[in-house]
Amino acid sequence: MKLKPIGVIRSPFTTPAGTPIQPTFAGGAEGTVEVFEKYAEGLKDLDGFDRIWLIYWFDRVSQVNLLVRPFMDTARRGLFATRAPCRPNPIGLSSVRLLRIEKNILHVADLDILDGTPLLDIKPYAARFDHLPAARSGWLDAVDPDNPTDDGRFIRPDGENEDGKVEWV
Amino acid sequence: MKLKPIGVIRSPFTTPAGTPIQPTFAGGAEGTVEVFEKYAEGLKDLDGFDRIWLIYWFDRVSQVNLLVRPFMDTARRGLFATRAPCRPNPIGLSSVRLLRIEKNILHVADLDILDGTPLLDIKPYAARFDHLPAARSGWLDAVDPDNPTDDGRFIRPDGENEDGKVEWV
Repeated sequence: MKLKPIGVIRSPFTTPAGTPIQPTFAGGAEGTVEVFEKYAEGLKDLDGFDRIWLIYWFDRVSQVNLLVRPFMDTARRGLFATRAPCRPNPIGLSSVRLLRIEKNILHVADLDILDGTPLLDIKPYAARFDHLPAARSGWLDAVDPDNPTDDGRFIRPDGENEDGKVEWV
Repeated sequence: MKLKPIGVIRSPFTTPAGTPIQPTFAGGAEGTVEVFEKYAEGLKDLDGFDRIWLIYWFDRVSQVNLLVRPFMDTARRGLFATRAPCRPNPIGLSSVRLLRIEKNILHVADLDILDGTPLLDIKPYAARFDHLPAARSGWLDAVDPDNPTDDGRFIRPDGENEDGKVEWV
């Protein structure tokens, strides 16, 4: 199972510290998604969607940690109950607002992604598929931090990082 | 960028033909997600979430097609404006209902995934991150098929498949 980048994400965020941790907290931050020209034909019809999913590679994370202290909480949580980047397969998922498309360049808002991140896939955000009733959102229901941002904790060398098990990949 | 399976998805659907095409149309179909034991620690706290994202590998698709006739429409659409599986990186994304967790086994409902599919990642479905206002859902707003299901079109050999460009991978 090998991946290849199909484009690159351009954002105002060049370092993990200070980067928004979810589109919800991105304050509308704008940027572009450059889809490589060989894939541009696949963008047909995408302009009808208000939001799109970006699936991308957390290319600046080099560790796996099954217990993490997420940005929005002080307790250690199971990795799969968080959106932390230090995953066995470091795949990121963000729903951003699609502003307009110019040829192979998507102009987007609500970006929470580091500049230069490799793009793996784009899917439409479909209200019918994705806007789902979900009464309980676990530990996230109990926290309400003020403007949470990345502080770089997931790219620091072992020892400065989480106190759980760290497996370098 | 290499992936490794972190588990396997068990569902009632053994062939593409007849498989639901989205959790929305799965009629509540139940199955399990077996997370390999070495990753089980990462499932802590996940039981508080009503829904979870499964990210998986479309392991029975061996082609890329940038223009596709989706199951829910008769027109050819740009691949990235659809959830069709014949993608440059064949990554699938489904939000399923989490019923309960027994050790490393997740019992889930609303499954639209083939039996035996390799699991790549699990993320919580968080209302705050994923339940987003999206007024326009493009071509999907104009179609309303009755109980759409897979008919196997994306795994047929070239020539029996889409009439667009097909690149075998």
